[in-house]
Amino acid sequence: MGLVVQKYGGSSVADAEGIKRVAKRVIEAKKNGHQVVVVVSAMGDTTDELIDLAGEVSPVTSGREFDMLLTAGERISMALLAMAIKSLGHEAQSFTGSQAGVITDSVHNKARIIDVTPGRIQTALDEGNIAIVAGFQGVSQDKKDITTLGRGGSDTTAVALAAALNAEVCEIYTDVDGVFTADPRVVKKARKIDWISFEDMLELASSGSKVLLHRCVEYARRYNIPIHVRSSFSGLRGTWVSNQPQGDQPMEQALISGVAHDTSEAKITVVGVPDKPGEAAKIFRAIADAELNIDMVVQNVSAASTGLTDISFTLPKTDGRRAIEALERAKAGIGFDSLRYDDQIAKISLVGAGMKTNPGVTATFFEALSGAGVNIELISTSEIRISVVTRKDDVNEAVRAVHTAFGLDSESDEAVVYGGTGR
Amino acid sequence: MGLVVQKYGGSSVADAEGIKRVAKRVIEAKKNGHQVVVVVSAMGDTTDELIDLAGEVSPVTSGREFDMLLTAGERISMALLAMAIKSLGHEAQSFTGSQAGVITDSVHNKARIIDVTPGRIQTALDEGNIAIVAGFQGVSQDKKDITTLGRGGSDTTAVALAAALNAEVCEIYTDVDGVFTADPRVVKKARKIDWISFEDMLELASSGSKVLLHRCVEYARRYNIPIHVRSSFSGLRGTWVSNQPQGDQPMEQALISGVAHDTSEAKITVVGVPDKPGEAAKIFRAIADAELNIDMVVQNVSAASTGLTDISFTLPKTDGRRAIEALERAKAGIGFDSLRYDDQIAKISLVGAGMKTNPGVTATFFEALSGAGVNIELISTSEIRISVVTRKDDVNEAVRAVHTAFGLDSESDEAVVYGGTGR
Repeated sequence: MGLVVQKYGGSSVADAEGIKRVAKRVIEAKKNGHQVVVVVSAMGDTTDELIDLAGEVSPVTSGREFDMLLTAGERISMALLAMAIKSLGHEAQSFTGSQAGVITDSVHNKARIIDVTPGRIQTALDEGNIAIVAGFQGVSQDKKDITTLGRGGSDTTAVALAAALNAEVCEIYTDVDGVFTADPRVVKKARKIDWISFEDMLELASSGSKVLLHRCVEYARRYNIPIHVRSSFSGLRGTWVSNQPQGDQPMEQALISGVAHDTSEAKITVVGVPDKPGEAAKIFRAIADAELNIDMVVQNVSAASTGLTDISFTLPKTDGRRAIEALERAKAGIGFDSLRYDDQIAKISLVGAGMKTNPGVTATFFEALSGAGVNIELISTSEIRISVVTRKDDVNEAVRAVHTAFGLDSESDEAVVYGGTGR
Repeated sequence: MGLVVQKYGGSSVADAEGIKRVAKRVIEAKKNGHQVVVVVSAMGDTTDELIDLAGEVSPVTSGREFDMLLTAGERISMALLAMAIKSLGHEAQSFTGSQAGVITDSVHNKARIIDVTPGRIQTALDEGNIAIVAGFQGVSQDKKDITTLGRGGSDTTAVALAAALNAEVCEIYTDVDGVFTADPRVVKKARKIDWISFEDMLELASSGSKVLLHRCVEYARRYNIPIHVRSSFSGLRGTWVSNQPQGDQPMEQALISGVAHDTSEAKITVVGVPDKPGEAAKIFRAIADAELNIDMVVQNVSAASTGLTDISFTLPKTDGRRAIEALERAKAGIGFDSLRYDDQIAKISLVGAGMKTNPGVTATFFEALSGAGVNIELISTSEIRISVVTRKDDVNEAVRAVHTAFGLDSESDEAVVYGGTGR
């Protein structure tokens, strides 16, 4: 039996009862003969409370001191978990990100992991301890300042430690039973996925599935660390994310892994762009210089009569205002007519490596949307994904229609508790 | 203008308003040309809340993990204070005890400072920052584990940093205006002391005065760091504790510095001890083996008819049960008749270096007590202190009588807000 890294999110350790339940689950893994490293997030609302406090003393809630503040949250949950485990008769030691050797760059509030040097964790394990590590945090390589990893940081901590310690698996415990073929709040008949490849999971994560973030899956793929997403409440087998199915996992990959949707984006249309080389480049240089990331891009066919074309792209709503401002500033240099901003859109994505070899997928997808009376505004595809933009009001019906069309509906019709990952 | 270390207790940073008020006071010192290091405790009730949480997950609230938990409290207050200072346009950086170089032994929950290596603090100051340091915490020399310093730990952190950084003064901000000639809750006419010697302050601290703890004053005396105890609310000049009065401080030492009282002790009387050499030693060996500290000791004159004597001593009530058990276990070897336990006592102490050269002090002290109808049960003296044990019910009247008898009463009669130090 090898080493297991387990990660528990804020909802799993929201109160004393939750911490005691997690302690029992951790001990179970230890009793099964594993060495166990546990990564924890801050308890429930702790982080929000700290953010509120920060807002009361300062208008600037970012930077070095904000990281110092937020990391208190994991410190509390990890120490309590260690105490709970010890009270059940097992040895446990907690470690901050810094003590665990999580070395990052110096970009406060969204630091990236540069290196992991888990010497103290290895020693603690060798001495028979369960090692508890604060998620979401590290220490900067140059200044030795405390940093935080940003959204999904605790999942990334867990995968990074699993890679550095050569773990068998990184178990991500959350408040849902795994990764589903669609958001169960929208599709009552969504099925839990037993196994999914890194590639399909990456596409789902970028397309709006919130159970795992892209960053953590990318890290796991690079170091080939299998992820097991499962519920800290039910203890049931969840979803395995890995290179290849293992053991009793289904050997044949599904045609379609799932349907994701995303209502967090907005669409900007640049109207009346001269249809000549270099115009699109100018537009996206202006966006890039404002450090904004865009998602889908579509250029309409030029109207021969005017020599003008329209270019549309999507990006997170939160970046909408800055994108508009950046384009307005660059208007003279680019030479377009006007800008249109639309935040009432939704993106629906169909993901599955099987579609590479199955030419009928796109047709079935569009037929399903059409049958549900849903109009398509933009289309973008990769080898294993098709995404369309529709009206936001149509999104639920569209997702359900597509889910049914690809035979993803489960037999049963039970309600499933579902939530996001937090951090 | 040199370096100033300021320490703010939990009541001074109890909420966002308190933190903003402290930020302004810190900036004032910086504007006056000082380099400023600030030591903070946890906000108001944070520590109690963490202790409650620990109690919910584990019956054992001590050890390595408990220290890890508690240190989250200072982490929050120091980061918030740094943010508040920055929002007012000044540069500030916060540091944990470990980052500040507070090196301790490995005795969790009551670690002792071994060394202070404040390289990062010095660098932060040299770069023009205000340095904020978490009080109450350090890192163990051998295992690099997080430790806490126990009761009064933040004051000790402040004095230790002041010594290591060669500060001009260590300012201890609290919720009272300084050290008083008696507890103002008991003696309405108690006066604030302008200056007091380390020696007298040490005696007051061991005799029940709670504004400064013995440990912190002892550290300051050893490194000759003047302490200025003052209110974080009023900003008035408080009490200076140092070797010698400085500047415009009163040059002549008062005959009596103050009257302290303590109702936290109990008295144990060992009845019917054979009056021969070695008996007392056996009793106190039994107490010492149980790792209990005693305070006053009195042996009565032996009754010639029986050859037996009684030995009484006082010790903290919290150790009472263990002392009785230790003595019962040793009863056969010692050979006494019985034990009497009395926790309805109070100790009243008169402190002042002036009494060394003034033979009338003891007489005046006893006359004052007698005049108030207070019976004396035990007496103990040092060169600069006389302590008596009385009934607990008599303590307030006794303290007031002594305070008046030594001319310590102030002209005015105003109520004063008063509180303990916390940590």
